[in-house]
Amino acid sequence: MKNFKKVSLKNLPREEMHESLGLTGAEISVNTLPAGGCVPFVHAHKKNEEIYFILSGEGKVVVDDEVVTLKKGDFVKIAPQASRQFFASDHQEITYMCIQVKENSLEEFTANDAILK
Amino acid sequence: MKNFKKVSLKNLPREEMHESLGLTGAEISVNTLPAGGCVPFVHAHKKNEEIYFILSGEGKVVVDDEVVTLKKGDFVKIAPQASRQFFASDHQEITYMCIQVKENSLEEFTANDAILK
Repeated sequence: MKNFKKVSLKNLPREEMHESLGLTGAEISVNTLPAGGCVPFVHAHKKNEEIYFILSGEGKVVVDDEVVTLKKGDFVKIAPQASRQFFASDHQEITYMCIQVKENSLEEFTANDAILK
Repeated sequence: MKNFKKVSLKNLPREEMHESLGLTGAEISVNTLPAGGCVPFVHAHKKNEEIYFILSGEGKVVVDDEVVTLKKGDFVKIAPQASRQFFASDHQEITYMCIQVKENSLEEFTANDAILK
């Protein structure tokens, strides 16, 4: 059993990585909304923090009725209880990564979790 | 206290998002290695799974002595105990995201953790 798994994006409208990568601490998806499109529902989470990263294009996310504009290179962290809905701009599609992790699950990280070889 | 935080990348060689985004379930960094460059050490982790995503360019990661080639759109999940070292290619820089999460920390996700509004 190898200690790693590599998967290449296929450029589909939505790609969920949990099963294909064998993830155990996160779910990661990559999503594209066409110009003028949106996620067709508002949602929140029970336990999971979400981190969004804009890979290309532009749009907005409405979080608890506040409008947050989005462009390539933007990160947005959203707490579980917040209501959220993503929109592409009217004239350009948007592609974004969504990282779901359990809130407060990280203990040590980077140098404090690393073992130098 | 808002339920979200937005931060835009500054295009620095390394940007760590944990503090700026107020993350509690992950650390995320975005890293650029110049052509011919590499992370100058080999490391593993105690508890954290790492997920790498290639944002641009090309290179390779050596995981437990196996060479894995990397290009834009590739994901690599690496288990905590694996030794790893990242390299840009000789002729092109590489920019990648590194997501650190605690192994086995995710419980439910997506539809099973969502609350529709």
